[in-house]
Amino acid sequence: MDIATLVGLIMVVALMVGSIIVGGGSFMAFVDVPSILVVVGGCIAAVLMCFPLKRMFVTPLVCKKVFLNKGQDIPALIQTLVGLAETARREGLLALEARLDEIDNDFIKLGIQMAVDGSQPEVIEDVLRSAMESLSSRHADGKAIMDQLGRFAPAFGMIGTLMGLIMMLGNMSDPSNIGAGMAVALITTLYGAIISNGMFLPFSEKLAYLHKQEMRSMDIILRGIMAIQSGENPRVVEQKLKTFLAPNQSLRSEAA
Amino acid sequence: MDIATLVGLIMVVALMVGSIIVGGGSFMAFVDVPSILVVVGGCIAAVLMCFPLKRMFVTPLVCKKVFLNKGQDIPALIQTLVGLAETARREGLLALEARLDEIDNDFIKLGIQMAVDGSQPEVIEDVLRSAMESLSSRHADGKAIMDQLGRFAPAFGMIGTLMGLIMMLGNMSDPSNIGAGMAVALITTLYGAIISNGMFLPFSEKLAYLHKQEMRSMDIILRGIMAIQSGENPRVVEQKLKTFLAPNQSLRSEAA
Amino acid sequence: MDIATLVGLIMVVALMVGSIIVGGGSFMAFVDVPSILVVVGGCIAAVLMCFPLKRMFVTPLVCKKVFLNKGQDIPALIQTLVGLAETARREGLLALEARLDEIDNDFIKLGIQMAVDGSQPEVIEDVLRSAMESLSSRHADGKAIMDQLGRFAPAFGMIGTLMGLIMMLGNMSDPSNIGAGMAVALITTLYGAIISNGMFLPFSEKLAYLHKQEMRSMDIILRGIMAIQSGENPRVVEQKLKTFLAPNQSLRSEAA
Amino acid sequence: MDIATLVGLIMVVALMVGSIIVGGGSFMAFVDVPSILVVVGGCIAAVLMCFPLKRMFVTPLVCKKVFLNKGQDIPALIQTLVGLAETARREGLLALEARLDEIDNDFIKLGIQMAVDGSQPEVIEDVLRSAMESLSSRHADGKAIMDQLGRFAPAFGMIGTLMGLIMMLGNMSDPSNIGAGMAVALITTLYGAIISNGMFLPFSEKLAYLHKQEMRSMDIILRGIMAIQSGENPRVVEQKLKTFLAPNQSLRSEAA
Amino acid sequence: MDIATLVGLIMVVALMVGSIIVGGGSFMAFVDVPSILVVVGGCIAAVLMCFPLKRMFVTPLVCKKVFLNKGQDIPALIQTLVGLAETARREGLLALEARLDEIDNDFIKLGIQMAVDGSQPEVIEDVLRSAMESLSSRHADGKAIMDQLGRFAPAFGMIGTLMGLIMMLGNMSDPSNIGAGMAVALITTLYGAIISNGMFLPFSEKLAYLHKQEMRSMDIILRGIMAIQSGENPRVVEQKLKTFLAPNQSLRSEAA
Repeated sequence: MDIATLVGLIMVVALMVGSIIVGGGSFMAFVDVPSILVVVGGCIAAVLMCFPLKRMFVTPLVCKKVFLNKGQDIPALIQTLVGLAETARREGLLALEARLDEIDNDFIKLGIQMAVDGSQPEVIEDVLRSAMESLSSRHADGKAIMDQLGRFAPAFGMIGTLMGLIMMLGNMSDPSNIGAGMAVALITTLYGAIISNGMFLPFSEKLAYLHKQEMRSMDIILRGIMAIQSGENPRVVEQKLKTFLAPNQSLRSEAA
Repeated sequence: MDIATLVGLIMVVALMVGSIIVGGGSFMAFVDVPSILVVVGGCIAAVLMCFPLKRMFVTPLVCKKVFLNKGQDIPALIQTLVGLAETARREGLLALEARLDEIDNDFIKLGIQMAVDGSQPEVIEDVLRSAMESLSSRHADGKAIMDQLGRFAPAFGMIGTLMGLIMMLGNMSDPSNIGAGMAVALITTLYGAIISNGMFLPFSEKLAYLHKQEMRSMDIILRGIMAIQSGENPRVVEQKLKTFLAPNQSLRSEAA
Repeated sequence: MDIATLVGLIMVVALMVGSIIVGGGSFMAFVDVPSILVVVGGCIAAVLMCFPLKRMFVTPLVCKKVFLNKGQDIPALIQTLVGLAETARREGLLALEARLDEIDNDFIKLGIQMAVDGSQPEVIEDVLRSAMESLSSRHADGKAIMDQLGRFAPAFGMIGTLMGLIMMLGNMSDPSNIGAGMAVALITTLYGAIISNGMFLPFSEKLAYLHKQEMRSMDIILRGIMAIQSGENPRVVEQKLKTFLAPNQSLRSEAA
Repeated sequence: MDIATLVGLIMVVALMVGSIIVGGGSFMAFVDVPSILVVVGGCIAAVLMCFPLKRMFVTPLVCKKVFLNKGQDIPALIQTLVGLAETARREGLLALEARLDEIDNDFIKLGIQMAVDGSQPEVIEDVLRSAMESLSSRHADGKAIMDQLGRFAPAFGMIGTLMGLIMMLGNMSDPSNIGAGMAVALITTLYGAIISNGMFLPFSEKLAYLHKQEMRSMDIILRGIMAIQSGENPRVVEQKLKTFLAPNQSLRSEAA
Repeated sequence: MDIATLVGLIMVVALMVGSIIVGGGSFMAFVDVPSILVVVGGCIAAVLMCFPLKRMFVTPLVCKKVFLNKGQDIPALIQTLVGLAETARREGLLALEARLDEIDNDFIKLGIQMAVDGSQPEVIEDVLRSAMESLSSRHADGKAIMDQLGRFAPAFGMIGTLMGLIMMLGNMSDPSNIGAGMAVALITTLYGAIISNGMFLPFSEKLAYLHKQEMRSMDIILRGIMAIQSGENPRVVEQKLKTFLAPNQSLRSEAA
């Protein structure tokens, strides 16, 4: 599990609460239910208009992924592929079938199964690339929801503030209320800014990062499978795949 | 029909009305006919300058599509293509002609008809890709109208507010009118923000989403037709096309 | 002629004038010659810095194109190309020379002339593509002028407002002048916003649309010429080119 | 020399000065040395952080190029290339060596020299394309400096204004000073806006335009050299290269 | 070491401090610990949400690179590669092994080692390109952290200002406090603007510049290695690589 997202979210809340307390403000001055309704409701309404209803039910899964994800262990992945290449070289491609159960990565499994079944290299590459594109497209859909939430939250915050200002300005008989009226009007802008910058925009960035990582490891797997299928020397496979590692990473240390 | 757009639009209206009532504001304070004319008229004028007159008449159709659309049933589509591949494998390409009436997808029909007519694979691919590009270009034109409406609405809202401010500032003999004057001036900005963020920008996003979906299913059909034409094994066709499905989707469950 | 641009422009002016009259404002309150000089002069100065002097003289031609353009009649174009393909198939490529005078499209003429002259297909495609790129580059230059005018107008509007505010703030001995001073200061921002959103930004969009249309018809012509040159069956040529039409368009109805 | 940049720059200064005089403001109210230091110093500091120190010394050269540049005479260029093609066709490639001294374009010289030396066509194209990429990369570096100056000027303008506002707000014992304090605070924003929109952003656009022009003529030269090297018919060379001209340009008129 | 970044950073600080002193403001009026916490804490929280925890530890290394970097000496690099090409031509590829120790560039070493080992050219190119892509991807990750810090700093600055305004507006019993309250509220916006424009955005630009430089020299090395491996004439290698130099650079002068 990636605790950074949770830590960051708690930190944002703590900062907001802390700065209210330190500033000597009343916490209740920052809670205004109609304002919450306008901003949150506006976001949901906009996203309902942006995507089909079915996509909405994916939103919790996308959020869950932001909080619960584990990084890709690239060195271990390369070790696995080099191990498979060694088996294939020594005992033939068919020997890989016996090792399929050890592997818990579905993408490697799909590729190895096709190689064992004797599919043509072009077919294997085609199927694996289609699977990558399909996943990539689903990732883009998930990220798009976060992006739209992060984009419409400040917009509805501003709409709420404009509405509050118009109500306040049309009713200035008692000047002592102007301050309070403007304070309430500004709250929607604050909500919009916090929801956007403290939640959905960073979530979208994390999804982009996770997507990039996942594509990188799938790319490594694809190259590994193609090399295994063509019976390449395991040392060459290792040399090729190791170029994906940072110079300070090494296969041995992390795989030890 | 995709009710999400309608639900979202009703929700935006309800939120606006609700927050006025809850805020104790007068509903009439938010209705100002000249302001509506400036923002809506300005949008229409800008869009008239952006596109030829003929394109204007397409706008209602584009809006209709935002409200009335049904998703692509990708698993059913793949089933259909695999079924056609089986017929072609068993009974030959010409046997597909008898099945053309069952298919209600024009793009599949076009491709199968060409395969039955014995067109060269390159010609089939060329014609199908041209049809995709042509549709893609029409989609882009439709989306562009929504984009421009969503872009010029806030601009004319700001222009209306500037005009209101200049009128108010030039006539400050009675300070008690300043509040009311500013309230009216801000209304155009509010209209522009609502029209843009509560209608056209989300509509544009939905069109983008629908376009992506439609292109994806046409891409699946294209690959399927090419595989059928070349007499590929229906199992290989199925394997290739299934990579377009999410892992939690399966052909059988949804097609059952 | 495309009257939409003219209608849109008149509509913007009418809206501005109308909302001043309805708002009961004085029309003269919105006319300030120094403000016009700052915004219009600033735009011209910025564009002089952006492009060589010679490009400036193209600006009127570009504006003219925005107002005076006629759409591409794609179905008629395809009919012409299919007709040429039939002639070439029946009577040979050289017979096309006699039909050159009927054609009033320079791009078709260039391609047919080269085909008649017996140029190699690669040379024909190369020359036609170069001509498309060259036109595309000239279109981009024209659009760039509109884009820069639309970008610098609000910037110089803001500069004028800042200058007005600084003058007003430095001279607040008579508070009754503050309103009038701010009104004048805001006028440049208003001018910048109207010039940009009510003229140059929509003009730029129309140029982009016209460019896209023109490139599309040139693409159809290019494919048609290549098919004619290679002596393809006119029916296949028609089938290929018809994919560029929308489903509700048909060759017969419009060409009848 | 391209006087448009100079004319534009003088025009911006004249507009600013003129509108101060017409507005009856004091010219000295717009001069504030600390404000100049904050905006200009902030720009320089930001650019020092953006690029290595060595790049800084290139800035004057880049500015000089904005003011002193002459357009590419494309028709003359094509004439030169067609002339070289005729010589090569009539007297052989080696005869081009004698004509090298007439040519004052280094890029043509490089290409012809390689053709005369009997380099392989692939090597010639490779070397010429590398030279284009290398120049393109240096152009991008030069433009980037202008872009960053144009981007950070308004940012440091806003920083200066915020600092001025904070100082003024913390010291409001004498309300009569508020106007003057705000006026001074706004001056940095004005400086930032003028420096950016009246200098560096247009300069960056001009560099982009010059780059595009230069790349276009290098592209014409590259195609010309390759055609000459392969001994193509001078008429075909001319026909190919003339597609780069606008329809209203002709080789004869301008070269006459 | 590249002192420009350090000089720029010191200059920003000096400008800020200097303009406070010159403006006669109190330095302490610009220090507000809760404001620092909101802006810096918000930035850190947002970045924690954007990237996995492990990436955070890379931030100091990325910052270090911004301050400590030395430019690529392209002429010396080309000299080295031409020298290797001469050795390879005269004494054979294997003779390069003896010269590996002289080279302190890991990328050249990797390429030469593979050439000496007799790897296929395609394998060498594949491995070197993978290494470039892998480095490029790590560079992008490092730059992304700077980008997000530069993007979220102003956002949390605005959030802090909104919170300060709401607290101030809700407590306007003593009008003499309004100025001080607004001054404190604006401080977070100032912090956000300085942190973003005076640190992270320029840092991100410098990283982009360094990345481009490094990719350019790796591209030169890649072409050099491939030419050496294929036994090309050292003069041709030099001619090819010299096209990467600016016209005013020469191999001899800098290598002397």
